Amino acid sequence: MLDPADWEAFRAQSHRMLDDALDFISSVRERNVWTAVPDDVRERLSTPMPQDESSLDAVYDEFARDVMPYVTGNIHPRFFGWVHGSGTPTGAIADFLAAIMNSNVGGRNHGAVYVERAVIAWFRDLFQFPQTASGVLVTGTSEANLIAVLVARTKAAGTSVRETGLGAMRERLVGYASRGTHGCVRKAFEIAGLGSSALRVLPTDERHRIDPAMLARAIAQDRSDGFAPFLIVGNAGTVDVGAIDPLDDLATLAQREGIWFHVDGAFGALAMLAPSVRPLLRGLERADSIAFDFHKWLHVPYDAGCVIVRDGEMHRATFASEGPYITRMPRGLASATPWFTDFTIDLSRGFRALKVWFTIKQFGAKRIGEAIERNVAQAHRLGASIAADSSFELMTPVQLNIVCFRCTPAGLDDDALDRFNDEVVIRVQESGEAVTSSTTIGGRRAIRVNITNHRTEDRDLDVLLAAIRRTAQAMQREGFGR
Amino acid sequence: MLDPADWEAFRAQSHRMLDDALDFISSVRERNVWTAVPDDVRERLSTPMPQDESSLDAVYDEFARDVMPYVTGNIHPRFFGWVHGSGTPTGAIADFLAAIMNSNVGGRNHGAVYVERAVIAWFRDLFQFPQTASGVLVTGTSEANLIAVLVARTKAAGTSVRETGLGAMRERLVGYASRGTHGCVRKAFEIAGLGSSALRVLPTDERHRIDPAMLARAIAQDRSDGFAPFLIVGNAGTVDVGAIDPLDDLATLAQREGIWFHVDGAFGALAMLAPSVRPLLRGLERADSIAFDFHKWLHVPYDAGCVIVRDGEMHRATFASEGPYITRMPRGLASATPWFTDFTIDLSRGFRALKVWFTIKQFGAKRIGEAIERNVAQAHRLGASIAADSSFELMTPVQLNIVCFRCTPAGLDDDALDRFNDEVVIRVQESGEAVTSSTTIGGRRAIRVNITNHRTEDRDLDVLLAAIRRTAQAMQREGFGR
Repeated sequence: MLDPADWEAFRAQSHRMLDDALDFISSVRERNVWTAVPDDVRERLSTPMPQDESSLDAVYDEFARDVMPYVTGNIHPRFFGWVHGSGTPTGAIADFLAAIMNSNVGGRNHGAVYVERAVIAWFRDLFQFPQTASGVLVTGTSEANLIAVLVARTKAAGTSVRETGLGAMRERLVGYASRGTHGCVRKAFEIAGLGSSALRVLPTDERHRIDPAMLARAIAQDRSDGFAPFLIVGNAGTVDVGAIDPLDDLATLAQREGIWFHVDGAFGALAMLAPSVRPLLRGLERADSIAFDFHKWLHVPYDAGCVIVRDGEMHRATFASEGPYITRMPRGLASATPWFTDFTIDLSRGFRALKVWFTIKQFGAKRIGEAIERNVAQAHRLGASIAADSSFELMTPVQLNIVCFRCTPAGLDDDALDRFNDEVVIRVQESGEAVTSSTTIGGRRAIRVNITNHRTEDRDLDVLLAAIRRTAQAMQREGFGR
Repeated sequence: MLDPADWEAFRAQSHRMLDDALDFISSVRERNVWTAVPDDVRERLSTPMPQDESSLDAVYDEFARDVMPYVTGNIHPRFFGWVHGSGTPTGAIADFLAAIMNSNVGGRNHGAVYVERAVIAWFRDLFQFPQTASGVLVTGTSEANLIAVLVARTKAAGTSVRETGLGAMRERLVGYASRGTHGCVRKAFEIAGLGSSALRVLPTDERHRIDPAMLARAIAQDRSDGFAPFLIVGNAGTVDVGAIDPLDDLATLAQREGIWFHVDGAFGALAMLAPSVRPLLRGLERADSIAFDFHKWLHVPYDAGCVIVRDGEMHRATFASEGPYITRMPRGLASATPWFTDFTIDLSRGFRALKVWFTIKQFGAKRIGEAIERNVAQAHRLGASIAADSSFELMTPVQLNIVCFRCTPAGLDDDALDRFNDEVVIRVQESGEAVTSSTTIGGRRAIRVNITNHRTEDRDLDVLLAAIRRTAQAMQREGFGR
């Protein structure tokens, strides 16, 4: 009843849409990275729910005019704003096939379940976790970190915490992370009812890494103050600068203290695929859990992330539940335990694993690793260019794929420099030539260039730097900030 | 670097994949609803991560052989197991276009943001919520319910609970729901650190609905025992039988008691689109929050759900957070506050709204409402057939789109009947003719027929009943259970 009345007309129209989409993505370099959504488009996009039907052609025309041109920009070779993957046509086709199958991967016995299990096993093995480890695909690392915090909570408080809640606990659970840690870890503490004050945020060294000795002292202090340390979060690539915490030291400390060691490897964990970068991640294989994204350095379309947990039984004990309507059966569609819903928040779950499976099957681990290595090399090269240019200040050494720097026009104090650099970022975005983001490093605003982009060529970074120089010079000429 | 070396070859291959997919979906009726994944396929799906690249053709051939045939089954007109939507080719194409755009809809200023805002406004208006209400798309109702529980927690405990956690609270927060309520509400209490014992599970009346008078007494008792009642969860369609709680009475009670009224409308809330069903939902428009799915009765591909919250500020106060790397700007890509991440768990978010937008734009609210009405009429017709057949026992009156019944062959006690009916369900699934699920009604196992399927024709339900009769008769002949 919601299928096409005329399948052949639908087929013809969908082939046109496919052709347009491939034209769009293969010509992306010729367009602006980002274009602001015009007022008239926004107005057309805010009309009430239509009561009557339209033709697919008409809806598509509206989409092609009012939606398609206004991408976030991360598909473009000169997008360096935030840690966004670039996508691939392969991933998009895989998402289409998944949508045609329309599998619900909460559990049960069907093909998508085995594909997701395969994908999890691939990364479990990549991280050198045992076969008894568990995993589940999620929307992204925010959710993956939340799941890890919850499993660690179960480990520390016992499975009875599911029933009794945190109000019944005598000791307060506390966790630890560096101040370079992503805000989603704090959010996970809030959601889990632990409270953000239970996340001890530690200062970092000159390379934005946590100091294990300071962490050991913080744990000892908390213990003597009657708190119950339960979790250390290490970073494999911090969001601001790409710093990698001393994971091996953290693993040793966590083991000694008997507390859970989780690694937020949102983008960095996949550098395990890149032979030249992999040594930086030493200790990752000792984590109790790892959260990471496929929509970053694996370039699958948004969204897809994953959490892998060493103690699969603890993972399951945190989420598994029963209901008469989801009774497991020995045969038939309701078989094949355990079900993914036993390891995560959701019961209904899309077939995210297929785009990961297609991507890794087609490109192979090596080629993906090479794309990661290229981005890291590009960041180092860009960092060297910036360090060599007196009109810029490199604000932290390049460690992975992120370069943070600022323009330093003469005669501006630090506050004026902050405003100047934020404005440079905005104007370059508005120019459509390139996109960077902004952040704060050591209290000062910085231009942040993040390279998780398989389309970026070295010349694109030259174009970026030229655009920044040109913009900064124009702003100086107009006396911006004076 | 991960784009096709030969775009024209990729184009040709992707057109073949599109044709295959449309052949697959347009001929779905001719195939079995469900086929068990054979052992050799499972073995091929459990090989290690490939190191080297393959051709897309080769990967696709493997997919077409080992994955595509083994669907969950919900795309088939005779799938009645669990509350799964059927999908549409339109939704699949929309998912492909979203994947090509590859937007990250956590926030910022780009087209996908305005599409998602439009979709939220449509449902906000459908539910007669004010313009100040907020909303956000999520994976599904499990996550939507969790978000609602967290916002209600903020409302009751104050925003300081984000920092201090639940351990600091003097009074224990308690919520209420009927025993027909989905397990994800209990899971939300667990995740939020409230503990499942803080969810008071109330018995139901003969139509599986909560009793407001009993609920009022439970609240009074809890108050006198020193607990802090903070949440009533009403159901617009319970998972087992499709019961609708007396929403208007619950709204009145919640208002009088000053506690949050949330409605789990996973599938039922969308019956607001169906004029003949809508009156059953009276009171829904008075809720403080509503959770519902698009991948059920709107038939978008998995996954997509939504939560709408009357008090948009409270919603935002529960999730909004800051980080230097997500500084909001007055212009450029980092503008257009508020961002969706301020209303949900995730920062990275896919463009789920597009498939909803395409579906509603193409079919219009009326035609979707008609598809819902047809399913409800089919359930009533099936219920009447079963009630009129002495070899069956209708186990609860049909209220919406779910029919629960059992075969009652002579000479079996209740335990044997339980085993008999579970076996019928499995054998019918294995036959490929139709899929139902099982559940427990009044302590006894039931065959559960759920109709959220736009492809189902009345004759499909005749085929289902015939298959069940034939299976039961064969089992009687072989003396099953004796």
